[in-house]
Amino acid sequence: MKELAALRRRRNRQNAQVTLVEGYEELDLALRAGVRPRELYFCPALTGDSDPRNVVSRAAEQGAALYSLSRQAFDKAAYREGPDGWLAVVPDIETDLSRIEVDEHALFVVCESVEKPGNLGSMLRTADAAGVTAVISANPVTDWGNPNVIRASKGTVFAVPIASAGSEEVMNWLAEHAVDVVAATPDTDVLMTDLDMTGPTAILVGSEKYGLSDRWLAGNHTKAKIPMFGQVDSLNVAVSAALFTYEAVRQRMTSRTA
Amino acid sequence: MKELAALRRRRNRQNAQVTLVEGYEELDLALRAGVRPRELYFCPALTGDSDPRNVVSRAAEQGAALYSLSRQAFDKAAYREGPDGWLAVVPDIETDLSRIEVDEHALFVVCESVEKPGNLGSMLRTADAAGVTAVISANPVTDWGNPNVIRASKGTVFAVPIASAGSEEVMNWLAEHAVDVVAATPDTDVLMTDLDMTGPTAILVGSEKYGLSDRWLAGNHTKAKIPMFGQVDSLNVAVSAALFTYEAVRQRMTSRTA
Repeated sequence: MKELAALRRRRNRQNAQVTLVEGYEELDLALRAGVRPRELYFCPALTGDSDPRNVVSRAAEQGAALYSLSRQAFDKAAYREGPDGWLAVVPDIETDLSRIEVDEHALFVVCESVEKPGNLGSMLRTADAAGVTAVISANPVTDWGNPNVIRASKGTVFAVPIASAGSEEVMNWLAEHAVDVVAATPDTDVLMTDLDMTGPTAILVGSEKYGLSDRWLAGNHTKAKIPMFGQVDSLNVAVSAALFTYEAVRQRMTSRTA
Repeated sequence: MKELAALRRRRNRQNAQVTLVEGYEELDLALRAGVRPRELYFCPALTGDSDPRNVVSRAAEQGAALYSLSRQAFDKAAYREGPDGWLAVVPDIETDLSRIEVDEHALFVVCESVEKPGNLGSMLRTADAAGVTAVISANPVTDWGNPNVIRASKGTVFAVPIASAGSEEVMNWLAEHAVDVVAATPDTDVLMTDLDMTGPTAILVGSEKYGLSDRWLAGNHTKAKIPMFGQVDSLNVAVSAALFTYEAVRQRMTSRTA
């Protein structure tokens, strides 16, 4: 139990090469996506007999050790307020860039140093819905295995291929694979709807506080903006990424039916 | 000072018919949008001499009483962690539906019982950028004057017209003004790109947990969805609202240039 509670710290998760998944919906999706939990903890005082999607037996089939915990023990292990009684230790999420494959319809979202777990989670949900090839974190500030990212992603972090790498490595990788890079920035006259995003494309968004760094903006990338008519013109980063992503989806749906 | 600290509670704000604005950027925008602060509190220990956009003199011109606070006093009044030393008491935000005007280009976002301040704030930022006519909260759970909404909105809550009302009242108002209502829901075969949203249109989104209620879904409204190809198909509500809103913007920009 002490070891389990220790996994709430990032360093301890990294050393053990595992991450935590809390919540029934998230666990269900992780299992659907092929994740093989090492340990499954559940708290009958919280879950009752309810297991409509057979998470216990599916986890056991994947080789998970099963532990039933008292309410007191579970509360010590859980990181959420108001836990639902489900928690698993799963292997680290694979984030190696080299395993991502690029084909002619590839669509990537590259986020530079995005910080808030809620935004990363929202971007993953959008990426899942839009059929994005992979979400790539450049110079990451928050790791994909952060329990709050997993939670905010509603488990899509297990369904969407993800990667993390330094900005230099990501730039080189995109160039090697001949992916068009579209930098989302207000400092251009080009609208996102003016672009052709039907080929292999990476949509690039920057951090909440600073936007894209000069390193990316100075690159030889296409710059494009979302049309804005307001007093503030500051869209949330997950919203910006979604608008570019779905503009690409719209173009691809149109070009296929045309 | 006691009275000021008491305003951190919703009930006390309602009784006094005021709300709190914290943060330099937010205050700057509130003033730009014509808000007349009653009191402006600043903490030189935090702000130093920095006031690049002359918030102090602009607030004074609008009739605000000015108070310089010690660090200790400011910390008691501030609700943020890591306050920047700026706080104002401003009149309640106007939320009466009857003052909203409808013309042939009107575009509304109606959110039913959306709960999280971060989502409401993000929706306001999008609405500001997209030039939405007004954001209308139907059966609100979280009030527009909630300090976390103001903060998450980056101050756009003062720039975008807003309203709050019961669902029945909102439905009647939309019908009276002949506004096309488009309910965002996955339970339809109609794609948002199949619609014509160039006339007066209200985009309708539901709560984080339950989506739209039967009351709205049973109505005689157009139902439309965002194309989704994923394992989970659950977009964040602020992302859904943004995708519908910008699809309407795209159609309007295209129809004007066509």
